[in-house]
Amino acid sequence: MGANTFGHNFTLTTFGESHGMAIGGVIDGCPSGLSLDFEAINEELRRRKTSSDAIMSQRKENDELIFMSGIFEGKTLGTPIAFMVVNEDHRSSDYDDIKNIFRPSHADFTYCNKYFVHDYRGGGRSSARTMLPFVVAGAIAKQIIKKYNIKIQSFITQVGEYKKNYFSLDEVNEILQKIKNDNDTVGAAIRVEINNVPIGLGEPHFRKFQAVLAHAIFSINAVKGFEYGEGFNAASMRGSQCNDLFINDDGKIRTKTNHSGGVLGGITNGEQIYFNVAFKPIPTLMQKQQTVDKDGNEIFLNPKGRHDVCVIPRVLPVVEAMTAMVLLDFLLEK
Amino acid sequence: MGANTFGHNFTLTTFGESHGMAIGGVIDGCPSGLSLDFEAINEELRRRKTSSDAIMSQRKENDELIFMSGIFEGKTLGTPIAFMVVNEDHRSSDYDDIKNIFRPSHADFTYCNKYFVHDYRGGGRSSARTMLPFVVAGAIAKQIIKKYNIKIQSFITQVGEYKKNYFSLDEVNEILQKIKNDNDTVGAAIRVEINNVPIGLGEPHFRKFQAVLAHAIFSINAVKGFEYGEGFNAASMRGSQCNDLFINDDGKIRTKTNHSGGVLGGITNGEQIYFNVAFKPIPTLMQKQQTVDKDGNEIFLNPKGRHDVCVIPRVLPVVEAMTAMVLLDFLLEK
Amino acid sequence: MGANTFGHNFTLTTFGESHGMAIGGVIDGCPSGLSLDFEAINEELRRRKTSSDAIMSQRKENDELIFMSGIFEGKTLGTPIAFMVVNEDHRSSDYDDIKNIFRPSHADFTYCNKYFVHDYRGGGRSSARTMLPFVVAGAIAKQIIKKYNIKIQSFITQVGEYKKNYFSLDEVNEILQKIKNDNDTVGAAIRVEINNVPIGLGEPHFRKFQAVLAHAIFSINAVKGFEYGEGFNAASMRGSQCNDLFINDDGKIRTKTNHSGGVLGGITNGEQIYFNVAFKPIPTLMQKQQTVDKDGNEIFLNPKGRHDVCVIPRVLPVVEAMTAMVLLDFLLEK
Amino acid sequence: MGANTFGHNFTLTTFGESHGMAIGGVIDGCPSGLSLDFEAINEELRRRKTSSDAIMSQRKENDELIFMSGIFEGKTLGTPIAFMVVNEDHRSSDYDDIKNIFRPSHADFTYCNKYFVHDYRGGGRSSARTMLPFVVAGAIAKQIIKKYNIKIQSFITQVGEYKKNYFSLDEVNEILQKIKNDNDTVGAAIRVEINNVPIGLGEPHFRKFQAVLAHAIFSINAVKGFEYGEGFNAASMRGSQCNDLFINDDGKIRTKTNHSGGVLGGITNGEQIYFNVAFKPIPTLMQKQQTVDKDGNEIFLNPKGRHDVCVIPRVLPVVEAMTAMVLLDFLLEK
Repeated sequence: MGANTFGHNFTLTTFGESHGMAIGGVIDGCPSGLSLDFEAINEELRRRKTSSDAIMSQRKENDELIFMSGIFEGKTLGTPIAFMVVNEDHRSSDYDDIKNIFRPSHADFTYCNKYFVHDYRGGGRSSARTMLPFVVAGAIAKQIIKKYNIKIQSFITQVGEYKKNYFSLDEVNEILQKIKNDNDTVGAAIRVEINNVPIGLGEPHFRKFQAVLAHAIFSINAVKGFEYGEGFNAASMRGSQCNDLFINDDGKIRTKTNHSGGVLGGITNGEQIYFNVAFKPIPTLMQKQQTVDKDGNEIFLNPKGRHDVCVIPRVLPVVEAMTAMVLLDFLLEK
Repeated sequence: MGANTFGHNFTLTTFGESHGMAIGGVIDGCPSGLSLDFEAINEELRRRKTSSDAIMSQRKENDELIFMSGIFEGKTLGTPIAFMVVNEDHRSSDYDDIKNIFRPSHADFTYCNKYFVHDYRGGGRSSARTMLPFVVAGAIAKQIIKKYNIKIQSFITQVGEYKKNYFSLDEVNEILQKIKNDNDTVGAAIRVEINNVPIGLGEPHFRKFQAVLAHAIFSINAVKGFEYGEGFNAASMRGSQCNDLFINDDGKIRTKTNHSGGVLGGITNGEQIYFNVAFKPIPTLMQKQQTVDKDGNEIFLNPKGRHDVCVIPRVLPVVEAMTAMVLLDFLLEK
Repeated sequence: MGANTFGHNFTLTTFGESHGMAIGGVIDGCPSGLSLDFEAINEELRRRKTSSDAIMSQRKENDELIFMSGIFEGKTLGTPIAFMVVNEDHRSSDYDDIKNIFRPSHADFTYCNKYFVHDYRGGGRSSARTMLPFVVAGAIAKQIIKKYNIKIQSFITQVGEYKKNYFSLDEVNEILQKIKNDNDTVGAAIRVEINNVPIGLGEPHFRKFQAVLAHAIFSINAVKGFEYGEGFNAASMRGSQCNDLFINDDGKIRTKTNHSGGVLGGITNGEQIYFNVAFKPIPTLMQKQQTVDKDGNEIFLNPKGRHDVCVIPRVLPVVEAMTAMVLLDFLLEK
Repeated sequence: MGANTFGHNFTLTTFGESHGMAIGGVIDGCPSGLSLDFEAINEELRRRKTSSDAIMSQRKENDELIFMSGIFEGKTLGTPIAFMVVNEDHRSSDYDDIKNIFRPSHADFTYCNKYFVHDYRGGGRSSARTMLPFVVAGAIAKQIIKKYNIKIQSFITQVGEYKKNYFSLDEVNEILQKIKNDNDTVGAAIRVEINNVPIGLGEPHFRKFQAVLAHAIFSINAVKGFEYGEGFNAASMRGSQCNDLFINDDGKIRTKTNHSGGVLGGITNGEQIYFNVAFKPIPTLMQKQQTVDKDGNEIFLNPKGRHDVCVIPRVLPVVEAMTAMVLLDFLLEK
């Protein structure tokens, strides 16, 4: 299986560089006969690019989504669904000055060392924009898992030093504006909750639900940590605190508490799945930074253009998309 | 690919229930012509069962490792290496009283719901003992990556409320004894460091180094959290703090700091890889616990036998093993 | 892995219906830094559509190949190479009269039964046109295996009742014209020879060279038989005739004869690989045929339009393409 | 996926050398709750070793089958089913004289060139005996597909120069005795018929039923040709002869003829699947043969021991087993 394919039953193969001709993907294994809600897909794409002008990356992304195959008279055919968004804004000359520079904490260095050839424009293949196909495939997956009544919600819980049960977008923007005024960027964390997951998703040893989910989440740019249920907090707990006692809840076996986060032994137990994800700050800064060029000369990288201050809120639909794909992949196995 | 197979190039397929005839695995893709150090493999197995009598599970595990194929005159043939350990101690009657009971925070409930048939003896397929094959395959992987000078080390950093840069085994045992005296169990956390990793391991989008590693680590029982580099701490940081500036270190391009944890854009950058793993407390308690049986009757589970108090230190060689397999898998791709 | 993905190391994921928006594919695992010869790719596409006006399908296929990703400044990036050909000629109304009819020996019946929704226009996903991406990926694979000096050649050996060591295109056209005059179509067979294959490609048990090659060849429309080396003739032979004796050919160990067809025990032995492929006649006839519609009514299908008389010569570059992909896939493993 | 694993949903991973400790396999993805008929499995193993004393290989194979996991109280657990047969008869010294010799048309040469280390005893990994696990997994698959009423039958249709609709075992033995008297071996061909296959198995492009089946069949030692439906004969046919007209057979849509062999467009159409397989003669001869040793010295190989004269009838249960696995794999996908 190619490195750019994810999933066993509902698979997504992605393609595209930030400033190449197009970004897109091929979905294989989508059930046939499904009437796609295209507006819902576009709404997810809009969430990915939503920004207040003040704080977000300036690139105009019209992001008109084109489906090349797999859909006939509005319904899925059961054949591969190929789609793309054409990159409109790709003047290579804008990037001439970083052409030979390894930007700090960016992937230029590792791509150049691994592949020797590198499309440096806008980060090339390592650009956050290349996660757009995750959102499209996830939006389709969401429509299918909705039939099972499964619901995914994500909440911003941390922006730099600020922590809260969840932040409103207004609160987030206010914080990000401060960071922006400092010409800096910032990390963040989110919590995701999945309700109404059926019992039985996940297959030990190596397709445990949490392992496949972690794989999916760490495929997203900037992710540095993932924990589910009590997560790192579990390390501090006693068994007598952490165990979830089984009860008979009006004829249905459930657990009294849910420290486990909805998964036991790699298999969903029907309780809410919840997990946290931590993201590093965006590495592009509006500050002068020391670095080296391809020849190893130590130089200074000057700030240029306008860039996002934080991966949130744009990353939320990406995380939800990967989560939806994992859920659907297991549901199709069932 | 079956759910019990891990890896692309160096693959491990596991089999076995805790109290079935044997626990074992099949390694496929091991390079031929390798002179295996069997003593080193057994040493890793010993680490997995090391315990002070006082605090560890009482099961006598002789764990004599038998190789059924793939080795001829001490050298690997390049054909599948099958191995097993025969389970000596499997009196089914010992488990009659839990036969129909869902033990709290164990996998009995989910296995029964998923598979309908369940080998309840000692946890069956969900037993920690079923990770023994990880250790064998990892011990072989270690021998190969050693040729690349790669070194994996793991450190206990937390046992319940106690945190430290690293704990000695004596310190750990002292803490665990206290927990044991409370008839309780406890969570833990560890840090793993990998030195001398070559640049270029990992393949975006979906074979990013950290994603495959997270998949591997979450395949281990009791893992609740995984973070690499700054991990969850990165959510609190500013870009100006978190970025790793590139420097020319005597002709070699390196980074001044290593907040990234050795991976940029999903590809190793040659710096140390470090990550933390959190484990929940062992769910088997020496205390009476409320639960339900298969018919939904609420009952009490009485403590019986002797059991581990914490997954550490036994889990260390398991984590190292999965780490070694991930490294080797990527090295063979290179 | 999705059903529309082929290969382990050099993978092709295909998409597209005959009369949908586009036909294309995504290649993953192509080595980076390769200067592609686009003219050579187009030449293969031309071979796929070459026809004498008199005998071939009338569809105008401009087939302008568009690459959407994976190539920068003429060189492969090591990232996914997505490509497509836009379908220009897709008036759905042309197909209204076969919309509800199961054409004899076509895939309408099985697609409708499997997927319920079917793009009936021009055969939809089952059209020979959907093999265009095989040719593109194969043309790239050919450029890489050429560096190993490997050469693939295909020869037409049978057209209906006519058999020969190989037919020239003129001879073929002459025969096909006769068949066309009968308003009929015809089967064919070809021989493929691969020279300069290195020793050691193929991996027992289930990645034997011939097994993967057979899988590749039977993925091509209309293929009914595959044999390599002596093939079906081997069933008639004695061991004393069929065995290939080893000889020392000026310091190099070779075989005196090559009944084996270049593969021993699933691994290439350095001798020429040769195999035969048989194709059934094209099922679209310029004759009235009995059939049923979706409701089970027995009706007559009237001939319409102009269609190919035989899969040859167009199928030759398709067979070579799949062969090239198999060779490259194994070479990248080596 | 390792090279020794076959299947997507019902997977078999094989291990073992002819004269190593054991031959066996791991089945992953077998449905849980299945009461296995162990006698039926053993019956298939007996078919694999059935021979008249006069003509068959002398090795005593007790072949006691041991299951190590995946079965509890006679029922499948849904976890991996590991099994093996211990090799009883493995005196290495018997093979000292062929240790450094490349036997004609055997895999010694290619294994030595690929892996450098080779277990030469009895053919090592390339021995026909290593297909024993196919038979075990196939016997289990047969029990499951029987619930769908699917029936696989195989017929011997050719032994060397003799061809017939089918040969009885007595007829076969008589022919083989003649060949044996000539100190020679012989090729053969068989026909397989599968009845009651449901419509809809197979997934274009690359999981077409016939492609996966061909892959399975060419994984069997000595197979040189595979054709289904009209096969190579289709090359001689006209479309008007070869097309299968659809008819309404008492409310069920079927085809009037079945030249297609039960598959249209890569998907089963509900008609009988039939295919032919050709096998080369066994390369071990009771005659002196010229060959070379590992140093390239031209020498003569002297006959020794007693060996099979033909792969039939032993190969029949192997072919049926691979066929059953392919059918089950697709059924589990449905």
